[in-house]
Parts: sequence; structure tokens; C-alpha cells
Amino acid sequence: MTKTFLETPCVIIDAQQTQRNVNTMAATISSTDAKLRPHAKTHKLPSVAHQQLQAGASGITVAKISEAEVMAEGGIRDIFVAYPLVTASKIERAAALSKSIRLITAVDSLEGARLLAATATAQGVTLETRLEIDTGLRRTGAAMTNAVALAQQIHNLAGLHLTGIYTFRGALLDGRPTRDLEQAGREEGEMMVKLVEEMRAAGLNIADVSVGSTPTAVFAAQVKGVTEVRPGTYVYQDRMQAALGVCAIEDCAGSVLVTVVSRPSPDLVVIDGGSKTFATDVQPNSEPARLIGFGHVIGAPDAILERLSEEHGMLRVAPDCSWQVGDQLRIIPNHICSTVNLHNQVIWQDGDQYIAVPVLARGKLE
Amino acid sequence: MTKTFLETPCVIIDAQQTQRNVNTMAATISSTDAKLRPHAKTHKLPSVAHQQLQAGASGITVAKISEAEVMAEGGIRDIFVAYPLVTASKIERAAALSKSIRLITAVDSLEGARLLAATATAQGVTLETRLEIDTGLRRTGAAMTNAVALAQQIHNLAGLHLTGIYTFRGALLDGRPTRDLEQAGREEGEMMVKLVEEMRAAGLNIADVSVGSTPTAVFAAQVKGVTEVRPGTYVYQDRMQAALGVCAIEDCAGSVLVTVVSRPSPDLVVIDGGSKTFATDVQPNSEPARLIGFGHVIGAPDAILERLSEEHGMLRVAPDCSWQVGDQLRIIPNHICSTVNLHNQVIWQDGDQYIAVPVLARGKLE
Repeated sequence: MTKTFLETPCVIIDAQQTQRNVNTMAATISSTDAKLRPHAKTHKLPSVAHQQLQAGASGITVAKISEAEVMAEGGIRDIFVAYPLVTASKIERAAALSKSIRLITAVDSLEGARLLAATATAQGVTLETRLEIDTGLRRTGAAMTNAVALAQQIHNLAGLHLTGIYTFRGALLDGRPTRDLEQAGREEGEMMVKLVEEMRAAGLNIADVSVGSTPTAVFAAQVKGVTEVRPGTYVYQDRMQAALGVCAIEDCAGSVLVTVVSRPSPDLVVIDGGSKTFATDVQPNSEPARLIGFGHVIGAPDAILERLSEEHGMLRVAPDCSWQVGDQLRIIPNHICSTVNLHNQVIWQDGDQYIAVPVLARGKLE
Repeated sequence: MTKTFLETPCVIIDAQQTQRNVNTMAATISSTDAKLRPHAKTHKLPSVAHQQLQAGASGITVAKISEAEVMAEGGIRDIFVAYPLVTASKIERAAALSKSIRLITAVDSLEGARLLAATATAQGVTLETRLEIDTGLRRTGAAMTNAVALAQQIHNLAGLHLTGIYTFRGALLDGRPTRDLEQAGREEGEMMVKLVEEMRAAGLNIADVSVGSTPTAVFAAQVKGVTEVRPGTYVYQDRMQAALGVCAIEDCAGSVLVTVVSRPSPDLVVIDGGSKTFATDVQPNSEPARLIGFGHVIGAPDAILERLSEEHGMLRVAPDCSWQVGDQLRIIPNHICSTVNLHNQVIWQDGDQYIAVPVLARGKLE
């Protein structure tokens, strides 16, 4: 496929920049005692997971059992489903998968652990599992104050082998200046190491302490006792990460190719990408990145992608803007993970080569 | 498929409520002089388009040539692509499709019209086309002041047959109280009828005046001279429409089935649907609907779907809320069109029957 045959809107992933991002994170984490287990939520592609493993990752992370199945079918042998599985049908699938690969499950409550244990026992397997800890985000995760007692209860359940604790703490970056990413990462690691030491003092043999997002992984990995970090977005990077100071805008491997479809007035350019093309979960002016508009137009940072309807994007431009109907633009989205999730395929660009790649693990029910 | 086998999260569409919504709009519009040409952006399913046609619609509307192709393959013979096609490859496909069905194209500028005309001529066809008018939304659409002159220029282009004008004006509802939907719909129709009369006075033979969204279609259709309305969302309805007074919340045919995965504190329920499951383009507190949270929990209107991360939804509940890990909830999303667009399939529910239906026209590139 050559570029002139690309229909718009489409997501283009720069292969060489992706490889650089993969290599940079792998090299940085390899200089610490922690292992790297990237979250595949960003790319949802076994092929990219293999790139990450080849660069030194010890395994991958996913959010759904269906994603684990796609990744296992694609040849990945070490997968952490970092999400509580609480329905029997999903736990049965996890049990089945655990017979052929290393599959790590997650729990964050005694009720959930009992459900997991009961189905595992019924399926004749012992599931490796990690206890999720809430370090401040207030979503899933057991309370710090209750975690040691809960870990002991989970440890006593037949069918489960509690081997680790994990957390995700991205929201605590809200509103902080960029240089405090280091502080946030260190705090995240230190809280979890302190907790695991309490668990060990209580007689529990907990090996793994898994933390870290793209903004904090580099710093969390330096905390003694942290054994694993799970960044996801770094593989492609995005406008939000650039605004947080995690990368430069030039490090972003993913962009949306769009066509100018209308030029109704000097300050308005309408493109063929709207809210069904660009994710809207990272809204303009929202914390922590406080971005202006819904994307960064490559080569034209002052153009503001100000409004989106479903299939229209409205760019506010300077009146002397020369873009005309039919021109193509490339726009780095605010959030690449949820933008990729809107698309059945991405266009994999390696120099002058453009290959359509189905996003195999997207749109899964479960 | 029985309900106990449904994995979550998934979108469930109530078949009987959908049929009622289809019938109600068809009956209402049939009492006017206007025809009904529903926008298929909401369902993206040929099967539902056929329901709409059987209830009296004269044809359908889509936003992309790829959607038109899916609909034509599904047996729909009268399709309006209400979006300017400005690239040769897409226009070639429109030209090809126009040989087997009635395909109506759209233009909003002379540059765009020239591109459309050139490719149509090269393909040996004359494309039926309509001129889009900006009646206040400031996205695509020619300015009212320039529209007569532009229509004359388009009329003179070989390869195009200019048969109508159309507009979309939803944003003008912003901030208005519900009872002004009638005023908004009437104004939209009246502006367009006045314009077409000017065009006819200038010697142009323009037959079609196409207007209207779900909130305004009923009122716009009553304006003498309006020949067609194009509501889309009404087929399933949603929480935004209910807040605008267009329907009751009980009229919503689409909901998301989710499972409670964590119950970390008395006021917090975490569900397995986040921003990759619920659309975020209609944000809480945004105009015109000013909704609280990201969805309406059926049977529990006071629960607030307050925060979403990619795969987590955080519901704020009263401390005595009895929901436990493993419980299932049904949530009506703020915006059903962009929510359906996130899912590869919907679950079609007819009484006790649940059938998985692929959303055939979603995720298309072009």
C-alpha cells in the first residue's frame, strides 16, 4: 500500500518511532532491579507485544481475558490480567488458559477472591494471583489499611497462589508540575514496598511488587524492592504524555491522517475526523495535562482542534491559513490508547511502506 | 443465547422498544408533507434500516461512502451520503454505487463540487447532489449569504445534478429550555424554505429541502416547504434525548450491561465499563443536556457514573447501596450513537431471546 491509497480518517503508526520508544523504555528499566511488563491496552497487537518482549520485557499486561486469549494465540506466554475477574465464565477461560501459559490473575476483595478460588478449584487448577492495592486513585484496589489481613485471607484460599501485589496510581499526578513525576513515581513504589514488607513480616511469602504507569515507571522502578513496572502508553506516546514532560511531541509514533473537507470561513477548517475518530476521554483543559483542543496538528501547533461532532472536526486556524479542501493533515491525538480503540485497523508505516494491520484485541466484549 | 451467557460489558438493544421508536417517528412524520430519511449513524445496521423503510421511511442517510456500500450490500436502494466527498477514490466509489442504487451526494463548496464533478464526469455518470447550508452550527455548510450564487455555479457543472439543499442545526439548541425545541425546529425549516425560494426565484429547479435532527425533526417537518427530515438517534433514543425532553428515559432501547467488579468503600461501586465502553463525547454538565455523570443506571437514577478510566467505571452511590461484586447493572449511556460505535457487536434482545449482531458499518475508514 502506498500513501496515496490511504483513505482517511486512519491511524498511522510510525514503525521506527515505535521501535525507538520500545527500546528506550526497555533500556531505562533494565538499568534497575525491576522487570518490565508493558500494558498492551495501547496497541492491542501481539506483533507489538513481541517487539516489547524482544527488547527485554518479561511478559505483558492486559485488562481482559479476551485480550489475554488473543495475545496467547499470538504466541505470548506470560500474561498478567491486571483486572479482577469475578464471573465464572471468565474465570473458567482464565483457568483454561493457565494450563498452557503463565497467566497471572488479579483480585482486590475477599468476595472476588472467593469467586476466583471456587472456579479455579472446580477447574482443577491453582491460579497465580496478585492483590490490587488502592494507592490513591479510588477505583479498584483494596485499602492499604486492610491489605495485610486481606492478603492473609486470600493466601488461605485453595485454588489461589498469591504471589504479588500491584497498583496503578496515575491520578495522583493531577495538577502537579512536570518535575514531580519523579516524586509521584517514588512515592508509589515506596508505599507498595512498605506494604509488602508488612505482609512478609506477617509471614506471607509475597514475591512481586508491581507498579507504575508511563509517567511514573522510570522513577518507580528505581525504588528498592519494586520488582516490576507496567507502563503502556509509552509504546506510541501521545500528546498528553508530551504535555506531562514524559516525551517530546516528536516521540509520538501515532497520528491520525485526515482530509480537509470544507473551508467555510478564513478561521475554520473542517476535517473528516470527529468523535468517532479521535478519543474524547482526555478533554481539553482537563487535568493533568491541560491540553488545548483535541489534538496536535503536526507542523501547525497553533491550529486548535476546537470542536468535534461525530464525523466532523473543527479546526480554528489563523485567517491566513493556506489549507484547502482535499489537503491532508496528520494530528497527534490527546490520548492514543482510546483513539486506537476506535479503529478496526491501524496503518503501519515503515518509511515509504504502509501496511494495514487489524487491531486484533480491540472491541472485545469481555 | 440466553442472558446468563452474556459477557460484560456489552450493549443490549431492546428490539420491541426499537420498533416502537421507529413506528412513532414514522407515524409522526407521515402526518406532515415531509418524507423521513433516517440517519443510520446510530445503528449502522442494514437490518435496522430495513425496519425504518418498512415503517415508511423513503430512504436512509449515512456519513461515509463505506457505510453506503455496507447498506447497499444489505439491500438498501436509496441512500444520501450527507457529507462532502472530496477525494477521487471515494468519489469513484460513489460513482460506481450510483449505477446500481439511488445515491445522493453532498457538496458545500465550489472547490468540492468541482472535485465531485470532475470524477463523476471521468466515470461517465451524473451524480445527484445536494448543497449543504450552514444554518448556525459552524461546521460544514455553505454560508446562507453565498448559497444562491454557489448553487448557480454548481448547477452549471457537468457531472452533477443539483436537486436539493440540506442542513444540520443541532447546536442551536444549546442552553435552551426544552419547550424551545419546537421553535428551533421551525426556525431551521423556515430558514431553509426561504433560501430555496430565493434559489427558485433565481431560476434554479431545487426540489428537496432536507433538515432536522432527532430533537427538531418533528417540528421542522411541519414547516410548509420542508420535504425531508433526517433524524438518527430516535431509533434507540438515549439519555441526552431524554434530558432534552424528546423522549422518556423508558423509551431508550439501548443500554450497556456491566458487572460490579469491586466495592472498595460504601459510596463506591466499580463496574467493568469505562471510556472504551461508554462514549465520552457528551461530557457531564455539558450543553445542551447538562447530564450528571456518564449514564443512567436503570432502576437507580441516583447512582452517579462519576468517573471513567479505560476499563473502569466509578459509580458514586448512597452508603446503603446493596450492590455486590458480581451483580449486573444496565446503564443507559449519555450518547448512544458514539457508544454503539465503540462496540463490534450489539446484543439484540427480543423478550427472552438474546442474539449477537455485528455492527456491520462501524469502524470504517472512509
